[in-house]
Amino acid sequence: MNTVKVPDIIVSRLPVYLRALQRMSDAGVVSTSSQELGEKVGISAAQIRKDLSQFGEFGKQGTGYYIPFLIERLSKILKVEQVWDVAVVGMGELGHAIVRYQGFGNRGFRVVMCFDSDPGKIGNLVCANQSDCTFVIRDTKDLVRDIRESNVKLAMLCTPASAAQEVADQLVEAGVRGILNYAPLRLIVPASVKVQHIDPAIYLQRMTFYID
Amino acid sequence: MNTVKVPDIIVSRLPVYLRALQRMSDAGVVSTSSQELGEKVGISAAQIRKDLSQFGEFGKQGTGYYIPFLIERLSKILKVEQVWDVAVVGMGELGHAIVRYQGFGNRGFRVVMCFDSDPGKIGNLVCANQSDCTFVIRDTKDLVRDIRESNVKLAMLCTPASAAQEVADQLVEAGVRGILNYAPLRLIVPASVKVQHIDPAIYLQRMTFYID
Repeated sequence: MNTVKVPDIIVSRLPVYLRALQRMSDAGVVSTSSQELGEKVGISAAQIRKDLSQFGEFGKQGTGYYIPFLIERLSKILKVEQVWDVAVVGMGELGHAIVRYQGFGNRGFRVVMCFDSDPGKIGNLVCANQSDCTFVIRDTKDLVRDIRESNVKLAMLCTPASAAQEVADQLVEAGVRGILNYAPLRLIVPASVKVQHIDPAIYLQRMTFYID
Repeated sequence: MNTVKVPDIIVSRLPVYLRALQRMSDAGVVSTSSQELGEKVGISAAQIRKDLSQFGEFGKQGTGYYIPFLIERLSKILKVEQVWDVAVVGMGELGHAIVRYQGFGNRGFRVVMCFDSDPGKIGNLVCANQSDCTFVIRDTKDLVRDIRESNVKLAMLCTPASAAQEVADQLVEAGVRGILNYAPLRLIVPASVKVQHIDPAIYLQRMTFYID
């Protein structure tokens, strides 16, 4: 798909552009400039133009970007013009919060199954906001089989740190290609599997630098 | 404190370096190179050397970095050689998960108070892992007064999107300087207040790009 090798750092900025464009579109705006977009996302206009130029022509000098077109192209590049099924593993408070998260709408993701190893939770019903469906907490023992059969390629890992690596190994075995890790530890996975780590301490430290 | 203007993009990488160094230190490693550190964090050795050079001399050509010294210096630069008190607003499942999060230990933060507007929750006890203390859920009505009196400068915002901007306004009024926003919307705050946004869809989109 993406035959030209695009640097990771550029890929990491594209979702931020897409989110800002979708918000502008939701507000009824139809065109923007790299200057305006840059102000919204805190990235220089020159950087935005350079990043987008990796993927071809998006706008014309002087007339700016047509937002619906740019949204369509970025969605396609990020492969979120489709909706990805996502599994959630670890149905503690965090897992429940994620299943009910309202921020996935129209952004390419829906939770379709969830797992826990606690016999007190397995079989319980959970209501997922973003897919308007209720589903049953499955046994982590069945994770490899169920995920493989459903062809789910993304998972959010919300177990305690002590269980996270073992679960990650199972996710890899099940064919998952991307893991969003909420557990406070670094996961070890093969190079073919991507991991993103949600670590609130990192984000707090990015702010304390500025507090005098 | 930080008299030289350091680009935000560099500041955003320092916590990632610090986390990797702390993990190496926890594993008993005492020295490292920009190459080794770069492999752990997925950033080039040249970039790491350039980033650190903003803050003076950290290592010697050929001998690498002495980890305890680098941890001490980075902690000081990020101002996390002290422990910051943090308030959590919105004690739904996510708020509870954050209060009990195990990943803040030794990284400069502890939750000291939490708020909710639900009369069914106000007054309930919550046990916070990272500070080994139990505290009471306070009424959001008292947020400005309580945060101001306690001189808390950081908050994690876990309310529904519909309440988040109003709470952010109160946090600003209370003197909070950094808000970690988990709600799925863009907060509007004065330039003197930093916001970091935890948006899982952004992280999932950073992975789908690579899945073919």
